[in-house]
Amino acid sequence: MTETPQHLYEKHADTLARALTAIAERGYWSAYPESPSPRVYGETAAADGEAAFRAYLGGLFPLDQPGTNGQVATEASPFGVELGVTYPHSDVDALIAAATAALPAWRDAGPQARTGVCMEILARLHAHVFELANAVQFTTGQAFVMAFQAGGAHALDRALEALAYAYAEMTRHPGKAEWEKPAGKGDPLRMTKTFHVVPRGVALVVGCNTFPTWNSYPGLFASLATGNPVIVKPHPRAVLPLAVTVKYAREVLAEAGFDPNLVLLAAETPGEGLASTLALRPEVKIIDFTGSTAYGDWLEANARQAAVYTEKAGVNTIVVDSTDDFAGMCRNIGFSLTLYSGQMCTTPQNILVPSGGIGTDQGHKTFDEVAAGIAGVVGKLTGDPARAVELTGAIVNDGVLDRLEEVKSVGEPVLESRVVAHPAYEGAVVRTPAVVKLSADADQIYGREWFGPISFVIGTDSTAQSLDIFRATVGERGALTAGVYSTDEKVLDAAEAAALDTGVHLSCNLTGGVFVNQSAAFSDFHASGANPAANAALTDGAYVASRFRIVQSRRHL
Amino acid sequence: MTETPQHLYEKHADTLARALTAIAERGYWSAYPESPSPRVYGETAAADGEAAFRAYLGGLFPLDQPGTNGQVATEASPFGVELGVTYPHSDVDALIAAATAALPAWRDAGPQARTGVCMEILARLHAHVFELANAVQFTTGQAFVMAFQAGGAHALDRALEALAYAYAEMTRHPGKAEWEKPAGKGDPLRMTKTFHVVPRGVALVVGCNTFPTWNSYPGLFASLATGNPVIVKPHPRAVLPLAVTVKYAREVLAEAGFDPNLVLLAAETPGEGLASTLALRPEVKIIDFTGSTAYGDWLEANARQAAVYTEKAGVNTIVVDSTDDFAGMCRNIGFSLTLYSGQMCTTPQNILVPSGGIGTDQGHKTFDEVAAGIAGVVGKLTGDPARAVELTGAIVNDGVLDRLEEVKSVGEPVLESRVVAHPAYEGAVVRTPAVVKLSADADQIYGREWFGPISFVIGTDSTAQSLDIFRATVGERGALTAGVYSTDEKVLDAAEAAALDTGVHLSCNLTGGVFVNQSAAFSDFHASGANPAANAALTDGAYVASRFRIVQSRRHL
Repeated sequence: MTETPQHLYEKHADTLARALTAIAERGYWSAYPESPSPRVYGETAAADGEAAFRAYLGGLFPLDQPGTNGQVATEASPFGVELGVTYPHSDVDALIAAATAALPAWRDAGPQARTGVCMEILARLHAHVFELANAVQFTTGQAFVMAFQAGGAHALDRALEALAYAYAEMTRHPGKAEWEKPAGKGDPLRMTKTFHVVPRGVALVVGCNTFPTWNSYPGLFASLATGNPVIVKPHPRAVLPLAVTVKYAREVLAEAGFDPNLVLLAAETPGEGLASTLALRPEVKIIDFTGSTAYGDWLEANARQAAVYTEKAGVNTIVVDSTDDFAGMCRNIGFSLTLYSGQMCTTPQNILVPSGGIGTDQGHKTFDEVAAGIAGVVGKLTGDPARAVELTGAIVNDGVLDRLEEVKSVGEPVLESRVVAHPAYEGAVVRTPAVVKLSADADQIYGREWFGPISFVIGTDSTAQSLDIFRATVGERGALTAGVYSTDEKVLDAAEAAALDTGVHLSCNLTGGVFVNQSAAFSDFHASGANPAANAALTDGAYVASRFRIVQSRRHL
Repeated sequence: MTETPQHLYEKHADTLARALTAIAERGYWSAYPESPSPRVYGETAAADGEAAFRAYLGGLFPLDQPGTNGQVATEASPFGVELGVTYPHSDVDALIAAATAALPAWRDAGPQARTGVCMEILARLHAHVFELANAVQFTTGQAFVMAFQAGGAHALDRALEALAYAYAEMTRHPGKAEWEKPAGKGDPLRMTKTFHVVPRGVALVVGCNTFPTWNSYPGLFASLATGNPVIVKPHPRAVLPLAVTVKYAREVLAEAGFDPNLVLLAAETPGEGLASTLALRPEVKIIDFTGSTAYGDWLEANARQAAVYTEKAGVNTIVVDSTDDFAGMCRNIGFSLTLYSGQMCTTPQNILVPSGGIGTDQGHKTFDEVAAGIAGVVGKLTGDPARAVELTGAIVNDGVLDRLEEVKSVGEPVLESRVVAHPAYEGAVVRTPAVVKLSADADQIYGREWFGPISFVIGTDSTAQSLDIFRATVGERGALTAGVYSTDEKVLDAAEAAALDTGVHLSCNLTGGVFVNQSAAFSDFHASGANPAANAALTDGAYVASRFRIVQSRRHL
């Protein structure tokens, strides 16, 4: 059972090498199969994972952490399933002390050992991917396949991607170097130099409600691999996926001979504000956060002792100028709006269309025809409840329902949100997307994020004005994704120029099986750090390089 | 005369490749010979450079910049030489506007073109290295050889090192990638992805008085290479070295077909506070600063829109436990204290020695004998004025003289600072180092930086206490360098552990021709970013990775 860190490194060396190639090439690659099929994962995997998930329900989550001073249970499933999992609540001082005490041996183990252990944690999580997927599904409201993919396989891919960047950064030069400087006619000066990778301190990961694993894993593994103990503060409504993660991480760490307190769970009581308490601790030197702009900005402004990586709100935008595949365009956009009821941080919100209509392969389409084309796809995808819920999942929390109410008094509906009765889960809160028409002067409405199944088709004077609005809203509020549809290379170039200037990733003419709200690990960058929606990208060199420092010593040979 | 950026890239490709190897190996390498000998640089190089320097004196510095609204002359040479160079003073709005306008074409030129142009700038500066060395000498007070090395050759090496990191970071993956994802029995999904390197915005470099080029070049070239226009705000007393730098940079940029306003000089009137005005501009997204802790902290706290890289004050420390080369140890430490009269940010200040003395190859040495041994070397090196001034140079500014007065009332002098009459420059302000004995409880005195020719030999209970003091002072105030002398591997290990915990680079048992206050480009890291003396290292991956972002676009093949 016990394997040394060096064994673990060697065991996973081929996968690591492939991941290092992938981040250098950024073509297609994936380490963890995204299909939950029994042909891939075995006949019993799905049932075993579900059983493991169900075994947690209504009980105390098994986590042996220091400083436990109570228990918390804060989750309520969007599917209406009674979860009732209770988590240990830990004293903040005890968490910080335990993390701090675990640091030196982990630091001194070096990059290879740490990376080997982290890869083993990923392998362990992958062995329990159905358990994770169930935990993600029932806390976030994602449909199962999405929970399996985004919350399981893709989250692991992003974790491995971050790990590969971290390993590459730590090992871009050797741990020891000899230095020999010619000294004229005398003997050369000769020294040996040791370069230590030194972590920043305790790392804090603040998880979000919708993507507890996908959005947390890159920071968690980037920090851990670079030597920093990690305290994971999950969203109170999505604790289980990260509790499961922490459990298996601790298991692997202990088996490898390290202090399991290198990964700790910080579950909070309602209204406790535990993230803020932790974030302001002087020992906390790295923070990864996904969530609201207000809180992300607060962290950046106040957690001054830490390197703070935030992903916040944005106004994702599509510019529609023309298309040679009108049906494909509507299908593609409509699917993007429907997936997880628009509750992805990458879902398009503003669809800018000239009021005079657009040219298409089906001839001229009026503005209303474009809006109706997109809305029609959403309507079709959500028409049959059984099929609908496999795309939409359920509504993650009441904030989304409040916005669906609020949007009723705004603009002119193209498609109204409907309540769908979930065929399997009676208590599930399911809503279909609303599509609303707005005019270009309604920037007070479309100029901010309406997180959830809400999007606006906005009539503009021209594509030129669409691009102006794109620049203005994305420049001011940020965006994680942008799209453009045009048959005119000049328009595509202008959109690309606007995307560069506002620092947002652009998808051009998506009409097939790739969607603007999906990014592929090892190839697509998620967020850019170049606009207000995020101050960093997942995952690139900048995302990992400041999580450690190099401290050298030198002596004469 | 005009060469395309691609030509420039190819012209310097071999040097760049060698620099990339050097940063990966971190052994010995240098691109710019540090010997000012005519055998290296030619018989007329020194005289030509001096003549070019003298031609600037008493005149308006030739710099054709936008928005000039006056002239400033703020320099006073520590050598008492009348400089009288006048610089254009520019309107801040005009500088920002010019830099901003220059950005898009520079961004769009791509990493290779930008790197080629930056390498050509370095080549141009190297062709004028004697001119630069004179400018550094007469503004900073460095002796000529040091000005040539630290201010010329080594500054260029550090610039190239930063450039190599920037190039490596920008090109760690290709500019375009193809992505092909299997899609079951259907056609694979195929996309082409373009990854643009997008600069952060306008960069500001705030120069220091003592090392205007060495400390400014890494940030300047890292920012410029990654696509950011750079505004250079020199210290009012050391404008000329950076004005010369800006002049040649603009010349090369224009020749290569780029807007010369990619590099701008922001000379200030006394008391203008121009650095603060520029630092708070929303367009300024990167700031590099070397100087006081107070101002560095202010920048970090207030220039929140920018990535801020600071090198500040610290308390450099040497722990003396024992030695097998007492004479070599004293020679080495004494030389470090004497060089540039201790006005290096890397000069040791606190020398911790057990009050009961130490074991050496010459038998037991008392605390006083150790202090006298070090002070004796300083005394010998500074005994003959003609030889002294070639090591000490002159005192950079009155702040240093004030501290020399202040230290007279502190502790017990081992060696008093002396006034030396410079044989060549009548008005030169030359002072030899003061060495002062303190007890371990005088932490109110030695616990802060005394920048200049001031060091303390501090009597401790034991080496264990010395290490405790080392941890406490470096942990609280930071340090750029640390040293240890011991014949006991356990003590060396304990010192290395203390260095890791406080994040300071450690030199062990230096007794020969390598000094604790010197770092070699491409091998030694300067600063670590892991203690209060600096929030970043020159130069590593973290130093360059956040100076740009990647913005991608993707479309179906």
